[in-house]
Amino acid sequence: MRVEQGLSRTWPRSRWIRFASLCVLAMLACASVHAATDPLPSWNEGATKQKIETFVKAVTTSGSPGFVEPAQRIAVFDNDGTLWAEQPAYFEFFFALDQIKALSPKHPEWKTTEPFKSALAGDMKGLAASGEKGVLELVAASHSGMTTDEFARSVNQWASTARHPKTQRVYTEMVYQPMLELLHYLRDNGFKTYIVSGGGQDFMRAWVPAVYGIPPEQIVGSQGELKYELQNGNPVLIKLPKVALIDDGPGKPVGIQRALGVKPIFAFGNSDGDQQMLEWTASGDGTRFAGLVHHTDAAREWSYDRQSKIGKLDKALDEATAKGWAVVDMKNDWKVIYPAEKN
Amino acid sequence: MRVEQGLSRTWPRSRWIRFASLCVLAMLACASVHAATDPLPSWNEGATKQKIETFVKAVTTSGSPGFVEPAQRIAVFDNDGTLWAEQPAYFEFFFALDQIKALSPKHPEWKTTEPFKSALAGDMKGLAASGEKGVLELVAASHSGMTTDEFARSVNQWASTARHPKTQRVYTEMVYQPMLELLHYLRDNGFKTYIVSGGGQDFMRAWVPAVYGIPPEQIVGSQGELKYELQNGNPVLIKLPKVALIDDGPGKPVGIQRALGVKPIFAFGNSDGDQQMLEWTASGDGTRFAGLVHHTDAAREWSYDRQSKIGKLDKALDEATAKGWAVVDMKNDWKVIYPAEKN
Repeated sequence: MRVEQGLSRTWPRSRWIRFASLCVLAMLACASVHAATDPLPSWNEGATKQKIETFVKAVTTSGSPGFVEPAQRIAVFDNDGTLWAEQPAYFEFFFALDQIKALSPKHPEWKTTEPFKSALAGDMKGLAASGEKGVLELVAASHSGMTTDEFARSVNQWASTARHPKTQRVYTEMVYQPMLELLHYLRDNGFKTYIVSGGGQDFMRAWVPAVYGIPPEQIVGSQGELKYELQNGNPVLIKLPKVALIDDGPGKPVGIQRALGVKPIFAFGNSDGDQQMLEWTASGDGTRFAGLVHHTDAAREWSYDRQSKIGKLDKALDEATAKGWAVVDMKNDWKVIYPAEKN
Repeated sequence: MRVEQGLSRTWPRSRWIRFASLCVLAMLACASVHAATDPLPSWNEGATKQKIETFVKAVTTSGSPGFVEPAQRIAVFDNDGTLWAEQPAYFEFFFALDQIKALSPKHPEWKTTEPFKSALAGDMKGLAASGEKGVLELVAASHSGMTTDEFARSVNQWASTARHPKTQRVYTEMVYQPMLELLHYLRDNGFKTYIVSGGGQDFMRAWVPAVYGIPPEQIVGSQGELKYELQNGNPVLIKLPKVALIDDGPGKPVGIQRALGVKPIFAFGNSDGDQQMLEWTASGDGTRFAGLVHHTDAAREWSYDRQSKIGKLDKALDEATAKGWAVVDMKNDWKVIYPAEKN
């Protein structure tokens, strides 16, 4: 005799109703406890979330073969397209344009010289015509010729007021809620979280600490040369228009070595510019995690990969498939994109 | 009536003897408790020790005007001449010579080419004749052409076996016991301790963590260019014979900005190469500490300053006097120099 048959014969209907109600309550309670303790509530259940949780459990379970000492729990994240959006252009480029406008009163010659003329006129076609060389000129002019303190103040001013041309959100509201949760989850499990980005190191250090909870010394990015000097007896560092490190592609393992001196065990990126960082991270001994954000959500964010001008994801996607790296399918893996959508 | 008169009249001699013995015991106990709790036992009492303790008390006393949040308690130390000895030549130069010998079988041409010929023959006069250019050539040849992992293994092998020509000690035993105590004292008070040295960053990272308790990511030094490549599918970083940063003099605030992005509140150096780091550190708001080790102890270590070829201390000593920075008088401020002398 099966148990339910025994019960169904002896219990009156009223007791069944009471029992069913209790079951429902228990399930609701159970679900709410799960939600309260789920460290990644904005991630849908699925292979990607599973991979992350399995990895974290392995490295934090003392005595398990995958265990990693807390001092070695180093996680690195790309920024543009991995922690915040990057379309229709890197947000730092929008900053550069706004900065050129802010600096233009001191540079009357910009009114008649490209690419500054187009930048000041908001003429994107003219800008496009100046090509990569023009873009680099704008970035150099907007990121040098002032002290590191003055630059940080400009970035902070911009980050708290400028708005994205499509979403009209302040840029720092276009960070990815699921990735914020991932950063917290890793730190709660003894990880040190770093940013390793092609973006400007000084640009990120101005706003990243407050937005991601990552301190300045854990933010690695592209770097310009600096010059130490005394201004009226007061020491300053002047930002020069000369590149010291392009922290992108093969430059990312270089940036990691210079800043950290150890190989991370966890890396997340989203483009071919992250391929070498992921390879480098995945190549060490012991338990390792390499992950990519795949932008598949044209409705809520953007959808792009192999042919994209910004955030091109082609070779790294092939390598991820070949090596079994985690690949976030943004459309299906993420319940929400931005923090404001959370409730 | 004074108390001791009253006691002397009523107490028998035997009781006085017992009382005196108890006093002595109490004093001994008190002294031993003091020794046990003194965080800087190898420092003689005096102005320098007092300055350090006063500073640490100020920044750690919650509610005091000098209080500094733990996240801002960043301390930077020069290495050569500040944390370990540097005479008769930087110890990294002795490593370079030994490394040239180790690499020589792969470079038969070195037998007949200067400065390698003199280096291999141990001919210091010949080496001196090759001048600064020769020294740089030796450093470049000994610090490049291998992966970062291979280089770290070479340094570790050397650090555990090579001995100083005068003291015959292993080099890592020539660290300064009072400075080890200072590092611990600061960390016990919530400081993050960094090295910011003209020495090679990769050279220091190989042995510093075990000797000073400072992790690789908190070791900033001079850096060479690196090249990422795949060797049989295995990613490596090759050390190139090209300088990326000379972390000395005005390069020290640059190295600090690149690695940390914040101004330290505490800095210790020993030479003119540390002057800008001390200025930079001392120039911020709030409570600040700048200190110099002055090598005044010809008997136990070395005595040198304004005229020295290695570790020249001239302008920085004048600035220290003018600005009231702490200056360690090694002979009088330190009870012992090296850890082996402790007991």
